Amino acid sequence: MKIGIIGSGIVAQTLGAKLIELGHDVVLGTRDPAKLDEKKKMAGTLREWIARTEKKGKVATFQEAAAHGDLLFNATNGEASIGALKLAAADKVGTKVLIDTSNELDFSKGMPPGALASQSNCLGERIQAAFPNLKVVKSLNTIGAPVMVAPQALAGGEHTVFVSGNDTPAKAATAELLKSFGWKDVLDLGDISSARGPEMYMAMWLRLWGATGTGMLNVKVVR
Amino acid sequence: MKIGIIGSGIVAQTLGAKLIELGHDVVLGTRDPAKLDEKKKMAGTLREWIARTEKKGKVATFQEAAAHGDLLFNATNGEASIGALKLAAADKVGTKVLIDTSNELDFSKGMPPGALASQSNCLGERIQAAFPNLKVVKSLNTIGAPVMVAPQALAGGEHTVFVSGNDTPAKAATAELLKSFGWKDVLDLGDISSARGPEMYMAMWLRLWGATGTGMLNVKVVR
Repeated sequence: MKIGIIGSGIVAQTLGAKLIELGHDVVLGTRDPAKLDEKKKMAGTLREWIARTEKKGKVATFQEAAAHGDLLFNATNGEASIGALKLAAADKVGTKVLIDTSNELDFSKGMPPGALASQSNCLGERIQAAFPNLKVVKSLNTIGAPVMVAPQALAGGEHTVFVSGNDTPAKAATAELLKSFGWKDVLDLGDISSARGPEMYMAMWLRLWGATGTGMLNVKVVR
Repeated sequence: MKIGIIGSGIVAQTLGAKLIELGHDVVLGTRDPAKLDEKKKMAGTLREWIARTEKKGKVATFQEAAAHGDLLFNATNGEASIGALKLAAADKVGTKVLIDTSNELDFSKGMPPGALASQSNCLGERIQAAFPNLKVVKSLNTIGAPVMVAPQALAGGEHTVFVSGNDTPAKAATAELLKSFGWKDVLDLGDISSARGPEMYMAMWLRLWGATGTGMLNVKVVR
């Protein structure tokens, strides 16, 4: 599948490398594709990323990545997502699926950062409202990048990932991709308003991370 | 142990009955103890509750319950908690442990209710600030009443309950009580500011409840 990833940090690089390993044709979109040697926060440079994908990974502008993908990922920081999607001209790419993995965080008051989601501020809903042509599916925002693409590396994969979105086929396509990563338990929470749940959960994830000292963690929904 | 429960709804009645079963001396505090025959939301009347405890359970005012307990529970609705604790004269009971199980919910926009917790609104922190004499421990707010006191009824008890609070011995006392209910995995999230995590998680719980159709659910933190 042709996949465009908006973003070039640790989440974008991790998802991109895994998707390429699975045989997909991936373009990673970044603000300035000429800056291949800039060290990314918590990740290597894009030149290193291209090498890691055995040169199968491509780096382009946000707009080129959005045009390339039949399916898109938003892997930018939540604070920057709407702006990046505007630069990507995401309103002009037709009715593509956008898997939104982002969280809006506030680092201004030190660590741990604050999770800015609330009942009146849900980024997934705001992206869907800003880009009504897209089929937004909130997913993967509840886990760290290494766990996203290797769920079996943690507790034998016995834990849960969530999807929220208004479009049932878009959620099914997302679930299929997640299963190809190794996810066994993909839980559909409902329409895009249900993204408030996983976005507000980020506040819990940050405290779990602090309490356990590891980002290699997740929750299993027992029911 | 002498235990005072502030509140008389389903959470208060469930906790109270279990604590009595475990041999504790429980007083349940309610706004008007004369109204023994008033049907409580999602629970029976207090007269039925007293009968269910083989008449060991006592019903009194908020203030009498707070004075009685060596350890206190806040089992009121989050919207009413600060007011109820003021009526209970909780500022005049000395340095007791208060286990705060409450969530602030907004039912004004229909179901599911909104979880009002956010980075700038944490009820556990507000209670601790309003009653600095109390040793507030946030706990049990992430699960439905039936699961609180019978964790083994769900997935063999293989799931997690959280404690947040500024006082380490208070958290230890809470964990001991939780273990007497059958909890195996009691995770200390940190000081009372870490209650933002479980309080904001309530938004997730509400969506999990909607998606699975059951309140008999919880999360297991895998790490």
